Amino acid sequence: MQIPATREECEALDRADPLRDRRDQFALPDGVIYLDGHSLGPPTIKTLERVRDASMKEWAQGLIRSWNDAGWIDLPLTVGAKLARLIGAKPEEVVVTDNVSVNLFKLASAAAKLGEIGLIITEENEFPSDQYIAQGIGNWARVRAGEGPQAAAETRGVLIKSIVNYRTAQTVDVAEHERTVQRGGGVIVWDLCHSIGVLDHDLAAAGAKIAVGCTYKFLNGGPGAPAFVYVRNDVAAKVQSPISGWFGHAAPFSFEADYQPRANAARFASGTPGILSLSALAGALEVFEGVDLAELSKKAQALGDLCLSRAHQLGLTSISPSRAEERGGHISLIHSEGYAIVQALIARGVIADFRAPDAMRFGFSPLYVRHVDVWDAMDQLGDILTTEAWDQPEFHRRAAVT
Amino acid sequence: MQIPATREECEALDRADPLRDRRDQFALPDGVIYLDGHSLGPPTIKTLERVRDASMKEWAQGLIRSWNDAGWIDLPLTVGAKLARLIGAKPEEVVVTDNVSVNLFKLASAAAKLGEIGLIITEENEFPSDQYIAQGIGNWARVRAGEGPQAAAETRGVLIKSIVNYRTAQTVDVAEHERTVQRGGGVIVWDLCHSIGVLDHDLAAAGAKIAVGCTYKFLNGGPGAPAFVYVRNDVAAKVQSPISGWFGHAAPFSFEADYQPRANAARFASGTPGILSLSALAGALEVFEGVDLAELSKKAQALGDLCLSRAHQLGLTSISPSRAEERGGHISLIHSEGYAIVQALIARGVIADFRAPDAMRFGFSPLYVRHVDVWDAMDQLGDILTTEAWDQPEFHRRAAVT
Repeated sequence: MQIPATREECEALDRADPLRDRRDQFALPDGVIYLDGHSLGPPTIKTLERVRDASMKEWAQGLIRSWNDAGWIDLPLTVGAKLARLIGAKPEEVVVTDNVSVNLFKLASAAAKLGEIGLIITEENEFPSDQYIAQGIGNWARVRAGEGPQAAAETRGVLIKSIVNYRTAQTVDVAEHERTVQRGGGVIVWDLCHSIGVLDHDLAAAGAKIAVGCTYKFLNGGPGAPAFVYVRNDVAAKVQSPISGWFGHAAPFSFEADYQPRANAARFASGTPGILSLSALAGALEVFEGVDLAELSKKAQALGDLCLSRAHQLGLTSISPSRAEERGGHISLIHSEGYAIVQALIARGVIADFRAPDAMRFGFSPLYVRHVDVWDAMDQLGDILTTEAWDQPEFHRRAAVT
Repeated sequence: MQIPATREECEALDRADPLRDRRDQFALPDGVIYLDGHSLGPPTIKTLERVRDASMKEWAQGLIRSWNDAGWIDLPLTVGAKLARLIGAKPEEVVVTDNVSVNLFKLASAAAKLGEIGLIITEENEFPSDQYIAQGIGNWARVRAGEGPQAAAETRGVLIKSIVNYRTAQTVDVAEHERTVQRGGGVIVWDLCHSIGVLDHDLAAAGAKIAVGCTYKFLNGGPGAPAFVYVRNDVAAKVQSPISGWFGHAAPFSFEADYQPRANAARFASGTPGILSLSALAGALEVFEGVDLAELSKKAQALGDLCLSRAHQLGLTSISPSRAEERGGHISLIHSEGYAIVQALIARGVIADFRAPDAMRFGFSPLYVRHVDVWDAMDQLGDILTTEAWDQPEFHRRAAVT
């Protein structure tokens, strides 16, 4: 597709955008260009309504009765079923539960038992939190850092692997990785955190067996929204969560002393789920209904191409792939003063983020970011660079969270 | 204290109740006597406001900036610090994180490494979900069910133990248990789910080292509100969570490859916390500010005594201790038709719950339950028994959640 060369061309593309009506469903604040959906997506109006209803009606009025009457008890599965389409899974292959760290721990531990070898492998550029989880499992299993699919194949090990790298946005070929690792009898636990909601995932077709992912980035589930677990149906019966909480029990209310895991992915649920956060996510997923995932992915690529093209004009280098097909939904531009530049952008209402030591990340959530937003954001970036507007003391003050 | 013998005496006690002003802070529905606070507490007005602000303002308006500006990043610790007083802990000895199942897993696994023996022990009447977690740890450690503190002492094992039993409300002597188990070099992981917010806990004085608890029962944190972990400061440096998520990292935003646990209880945080649920809990804890825990406990005992006294007049037997000092905040009355009777009560606006096979549970949260509520509820119970009003088909239909 042709990259727009003027703001007018951007407007024309936005008018022709098949996803253009989705933006109206979001509760975006005025005066903000939000390019941080790869970190925390904004709420839709429906999501906010859903939170209000869950708290004011279901909890305050329904009280304990809402576990039945409002369907709270089934939310981990009903929300999981809704999410399944976005990754090419069957409805019962997904359960919403816990956070990504806990889910990675459960799945990698379970997979290690599956291979009965107990070797967990991570690559050195893997998301640090994923590496931490592997180190924690090291209390029980051997862990080898800095290796990849080849090592997993040779050792029948468990590889923890992000589909989109958090810094560069580089994607991996899921099917190719699966072939390599499965050939040796190893297992991959896929991390979809930075890819779900922006890539056209088809885990089933790619032969992926198990995966985790977060829902507060491109899925807009809310701050710290619960994560999900995907376990392919034919694999589920062979794996069991080390955290055998009652929500993963086949009959949680019979209060039996012995643990009987549920069928399918549901066995990876743990304790009582946070209903307010789950309700927000249930609301958030509605905006994806009827969205063609190929369109979603195509638009993210187009917005990324536009960002890259204008960044190059500004003399900025990028560590993200220039080929759109090899990218997730964000672009990382490099500048030694990246932190201060991002703060200067935020002060002008263009919200991006920064990853140490020098990466400015710009996220392109196709449901609410328009071509004109990228254009205007890059105008601001250009102005900040030209005038050195970032060179102010307040833009160098480091906050706790970057 | 004298047990009231008439409704007028109940009214007099309520007028003299030092906690009487707290009830007005709750958003209780009209026409309901809520005796299920041992399962799911109701929201306060402040809690609902806090949820609205967290979603409508902090998330929708502040977006990613709220991790810093709204203090989201510190909520696991700031809410933990607020909660600490209720269990006799120092502020930094408590972190709010995950659910009880996940926390039990983390603490029991960590404690097993501490003793370097890897034996996990549960008693046979322990809360089933706690038994399930022990079974799950069995993938790595030995588990022995149906034993108690003596076995933990003899084997230097880890005992998982509730302070208040979920069925009977029987309390245990924490200090006595600690002496027994510590004598042999064992460790107890205390479960405070059914006791926090209704007992006058002093874990420090009792010599308890580590504990978990839930916040959606007597703390009214909301459905599936996040749980907490207590680790005594002198113990924290010796234990490490098997789930080494980035929120337990000493420098989560430096994105280092190596895991460095935070100091104190904070090292038991895992992944990104659910901010909406955490915000609700932050609001819920405000109603405890300035509450004398001895008064809280005394009132729960008085309400329980009243329930028991009237139950005996109705010819009902109880499996809960008759001595108030040995009880938590609920009473279990036994009836072979208990399920249907509870449904008939709920139909009349008296909300209690049922635990198979025959226990009707009535919870007495001292912050909003009055003596007249217990009186009126027992009137209804008496009428239902006398008229056999429970003997209707609709009251025998079993719901998914009881």
